[in-house]
Amino acid sequence: MKHVLNLMLFLVITSVINAQVKNVVPEGTSPNEHNIVGAEYPRVGEDGRTYFRVYAPDAQKVEISFRGEMEKGEDGFWTLVSEGPEVIGFHYYQIIIDGVSAADPNGKPFFGMGKWVSGIEIPEEGGDYYQPKKGVPSGSVSDSWYFSEIRDEWRRSLVYLPAEYDKNPNKKYPVLYLQHGMGENETSWANQGKMNFIMDNLIAEGKATPMIVVMDNGNIESFQPKHGEDPNEARMRFGADFSSILLTEIIPNIESRYRVLTDRENRAMAGLSWGGLQTFNITFNNLDKFSYIGGFSGAGGINTDQLDTAYNGALKDAKAFNEKVHVLFLGIGSEENPERTKNLSENLSKAGINNIYYESPGTAHEFLTWRRCLNEFVPLLFK
Amino acid sequence: MKHVLNLMLFLVITSVINAQVKNVVPEGTSPNEHNIVGAEYPRVGEDGRTYFRVYAPDAQKVEISFRGEMEKGEDGFWTLVSEGPEVIGFHYYQIIIDGVSAADPNGKPFFGMGKWVSGIEIPEEGGDYYQPKKGVPSGSVSDSWYFSEIRDEWRRSLVYLPAEYDKNPNKKYPVLYLQHGMGENETSWANQGKMNFIMDNLIAEGKATPMIVVMDNGNIESFQPKHGEDPNEARMRFGADFSSILLTEIIPNIESRYRVLTDRENRAMAGLSWGGLQTFNITFNNLDKFSYIGGFSGAGGINTDQLDTAYNGALKDAKAFNEKVHVLFLGIGSEENPERTKNLSENLSKAGINNIYYESPGTAHEFLTWRRCLNEFVPLLFK
Repeated sequence: MKHVLNLMLFLVITSVINAQVKNVVPEGTSPNEHNIVGAEYPRVGEDGRTYFRVYAPDAQKVEISFRGEMEKGEDGFWTLVSEGPEVIGFHYYQIIIDGVSAADPNGKPFFGMGKWVSGIEIPEEGGDYYQPKKGVPSGSVSDSWYFSEIRDEWRRSLVYLPAEYDKNPNKKYPVLYLQHGMGENETSWANQGKMNFIMDNLIAEGKATPMIVVMDNGNIESFQPKHGEDPNEARMRFGADFSSILLTEIIPNIESRYRVLTDRENRAMAGLSWGGLQTFNITFNNLDKFSYIGGFSGAGGINTDQLDTAYNGALKDAKAFNEKVHVLFLGIGSEENPERTKNLSENLSKAGINNIYYESPGTAHEFLTWRRCLNEFVPLLFK
Repeated sequence: MKHVLNLMLFLVITSVINAQVKNVVPEGTSPNEHNIVGAEYPRVGEDGRTYFRVYAPDAQKVEISFRGEMEKGEDGFWTLVSEGPEVIGFHYYQIIIDGVSAADPNGKPFFGMGKWVSGIEIPEEGGDYYQPKKGVPSGSVSDSWYFSEIRDEWRRSLVYLPAEYDKNPNKKYPVLYLQHGMGENETSWANQGKMNFIMDNLIAEGKATPMIVVMDNGNIESFQPKHGEDPNEARMRFGADFSSILLTEIIPNIESRYRVLTDRENRAMAGLSWGGLQTFNITFNNLDKFSYIGGFSGAGGINTDQLDTAYNGALKDAKAFNEKVHVLFLGIGSEENPERTKNLSENLSKAGINNIYYESPGTAHEFLTWRRCLNEFVPLLFK
């Protein structure tokens, strides 16, 4: 019964804390949408300011990552209010107690920055494209486990199936392979990215072809450098196996378990940040397998001075490339130094390589940029 | 780029920490199976002892919940080793830094104790019934969103579909509604309980009828008492709406979206702890809708002195009850004071009410008890 008694004790303690919190909610603010039921903090103001509050009477110093030190009150609560509005969209945060970074136990956990952290959402006006809507049939995101011989371990893909999938038992679907960024994993597109609602809405509005979306973990090993290892080497190492795992294990598993169109015309790949680099490495080197390519804040890998030699010459013959690749999409946020991606797009165009440049206004190297990129990219596929 | 720069800084810092950790791994121990890739701690010894290690040079006091204070080393690492082996199975834990309880960012988060916490697994000998196996077709666990008019909010069920579901487009399946315990949610059976692997293995071995399993959130509101509220009242309140949500919203949503057999003969319900009480309240009061009933460490709600009046007289006529309810299963762990549940089973039998009593050897009020209960209960269904 030890754990039950502890739970009871815990209930009483938290009830006291909760009772105190109840009295101090600032006007014009709402709980962060990722808070657990009943958790009042963190809060987001109508003006986009964020309000953090942590009960830590015995701590010497409490900080919120990316935001700074909190101020201790006599009641044992530490508070932090952002000076101005935060950038709209989804932001990671951690509570740092006397130097120890931790996830907020009162918030939904997200895998980002290489560990389980918390997230706060500054609502976007007109952001309903990533929200569930009445009357919109909802697809499902499910796990698909497979044994990786390459890694000698069980791995899983998360698989989005459109709402109509089960109603058309003889229909086969095209597939988008969609990758996360550095330090994220296969859960990030569905959790941080709300990709299922974006897909549901696009399909219901007739803007997107019903398709299957597959998300897997492209960070095969920890990106924490091993003892004495150069961090750059570590970052190259930790995703090194992904190409072979995708081509020889993930794709065959998906094509054996789901009703899938298996030709290159019906296979797309996109990724964000690090996942965009992986996407370019994999697709440009395997144009016999992919015909739609998207890089979301992750297209920096191409050196346009060396187009002839890049990716084993995949870009050398613009006409041949354009015939093979129906969509090459380069997305970026306006607040994350978009110049390099924009120049890349222009240089590719000069070289005769068809591509689409999309700049997300007012967003940073974060998931709101990537939700918008997905929302722009998916309607272009399989048409 | 602010967040990117922070990420880079974070990478360097963690690499330093990681490098230090590398040198101090005790022999005969392995990382907890729920650690993120590359995280060395917590660790579990072959003898069942647990090893915790947290880098907190500036903290005054670091504890591991349910386990006690950690000891600070000169290198800034705090350590705790359990005196003896811990009980086998899955245990919750939190890191408590200077009095602030937090989830371990290096571990997979589990929703338990009313918040997102961490878990450590003491492997069970012969525990492969809840592990994936080569050659065993794996079913899927997916989310099924629906709008609750009762709560005026979007809610989701997690739905397990057997591996064969998509291969039999005209076949309809029986359904088990499976509930979590107090302070857990719809994710707990799949995460802590590994129910999908238990189902996959039972079905592959021919022990269980292929079925759909539906898991939803039975803790409708926070169980943290509102300002001045009696904790007992709060606990009654927070699940109060669940019966009507299950009967009028969840079941119709499932039966409209999946190929489901909709008669009482093909509908079962079970729950653990608090979810067992909910199961008894819902099924005994709706015997026209359910014919299989399971309570896992959660059968204490029946007062056998008042069988005639309990649940509106559902148990008054033993013969009629036995004709309606094909399985009444009472499971409990040997380390959580099983006497009350055992007496209940015996008193029910004396009253002529057929029931099955299962006692899990050596396990407490925790998920290993409930994994075993599920493994015992499911083969009895829909035969």
